[in-house]
Amino acid sequence: MREEFRSDLTQVGRTLVAMAEAVQVAMRHATGALLKADRTEAEQVCDRDAEIDALYRIVEDKVYDVIARQAPVASDLRVVLTALHVAGDLERMGDLAEHVAKAALRRHPAPAIGPELTSVVERMGEVADLLAGKIASALTNLDAVMAAQLERDDDEMDELYRQLFKIVLKADWPHGVESAVDAALLGRFYERYADHAVNIGQHVIFLVTGENAP
Amino acid sequence: MREEFRSDLTQVGRTLVAMAEAVQVAMRHATGALLKADRTEAEQVCDRDAEIDALYRIVEDKVYDVIARQAPVASDLRVVLTALHVAGDLERMGDLAEHVAKAALRRHPAPAIGPELTSVVERMGEVADLLAGKIASALTNLDAVMAAQLERDDDEMDELYRQLFKIVLKADWPHGVESAVDAALLGRFYERYADHAVNIGQHVIFLVTGENAP
Repeated sequence: MREEFRSDLTQVGRTLVAMAEAVQVAMRHATGALLKADRTEAEQVCDRDAEIDALYRIVEDKVYDVIARQAPVASDLRVVLTALHVAGDLERMGDLAEHVAKAALRRHPAPAIGPELTSVVERMGEVADLLAGKIASALTNLDAVMAAQLERDDDEMDELYRQLFKIVLKADWPHGVESAVDAALLGRFYERYADHAVNIGQHVIFLVTGENAP
Repeated sequence: MREEFRSDLTQVGRTLVAMAEAVQVAMRHATGALLKADRTEAEQVCDRDAEIDALYRIVEDKVYDVIARQAPVASDLRVVLTALHVAGDLERMGDLAEHVAKAALRRHPAPAIGPELTSVVERMGEVADLLAGKIASALTNLDAVMAAQLERDDDEMDELYRQLFKIVLKADWPHGVESAVDAALLGRFYERYADHAVNIGQHVIFLVTGENAP
């Protein structure tokens, strides 16, 4: 029974890693589509969100199945249900990547962001990529140290979000209200993506140490 | 055992209803604080979000306890885990009410929204109030018909969100970029609040009918 439980958890863990990799790829392409106004790349992100949703349902079904078959208690139960929380955060990160891709589509063939924002959005994309990569790695190795780093990386995302606002709200912003609003919402999508990554980091820390983050 | 399980579920249900009532009150006061630029009212919303978070943890602990003690399977297990999803959506609705209150605080003593937006934001607040009230009622009576109405009410919220954008993006918008960005983010907080309400409606429909919404 115990061995079966371990093997169930390994399967759930593998699916979570696959989800993390998929949301990493999704935000990478969404950012690419945004920066290059690439319609095909944006459409692919939207199409492939269904795959992330399907992986979420696989985790959910597996978790339900494990609880029903194995009736885990105490810490085993918490581990299994934590997987469900992680999957929920990853599913939402996929949605946020799709929102970014849709923003690129809405303005196509015009670019959705002006040249003033290229470098800050590029860096937001890089930090998002780093965060998703660290999630995959922290989940693979149950690495609490790496999971804890996510919070510091999120500080950089918050700082980039503030920079984006500063640029958009400068008196000499030349692109008008609509594109300022677009940029603010885009910034929020990246910032939320990073918040979910931090949540996942806290879940991993809990899995490894059995303790909630302060 | 069976009777104990029912009584556990009743307790969880009551806590969810208390959460729904708390997020209704939170968004009501957040909207009031926004429309009247009322600092005290906004601060109360922020302070009281901790209570909503505490109710979330009560549901979570109770769900874990029920699974560990009762080892529910099949549909019983799905019911218990659905409660966890509902609590998660409600917790997030509380956060969104807090975001609205914080937006009011950020501009205080100036109003966070211009007079052009008063009526649309007022209506967004009313629809949010209606949604949260229907959640409380649908959870209390396990009323799938009322739960299904949430989707239609959300259509009105989406329409209000579009109206808000139209007003902000008009060529004669007099308040500049910063207040347009503020308004767009505020609109998004109401729109997300309504999305979570729709999620909860789907969970209630699942609880009552055993079927997922299409």
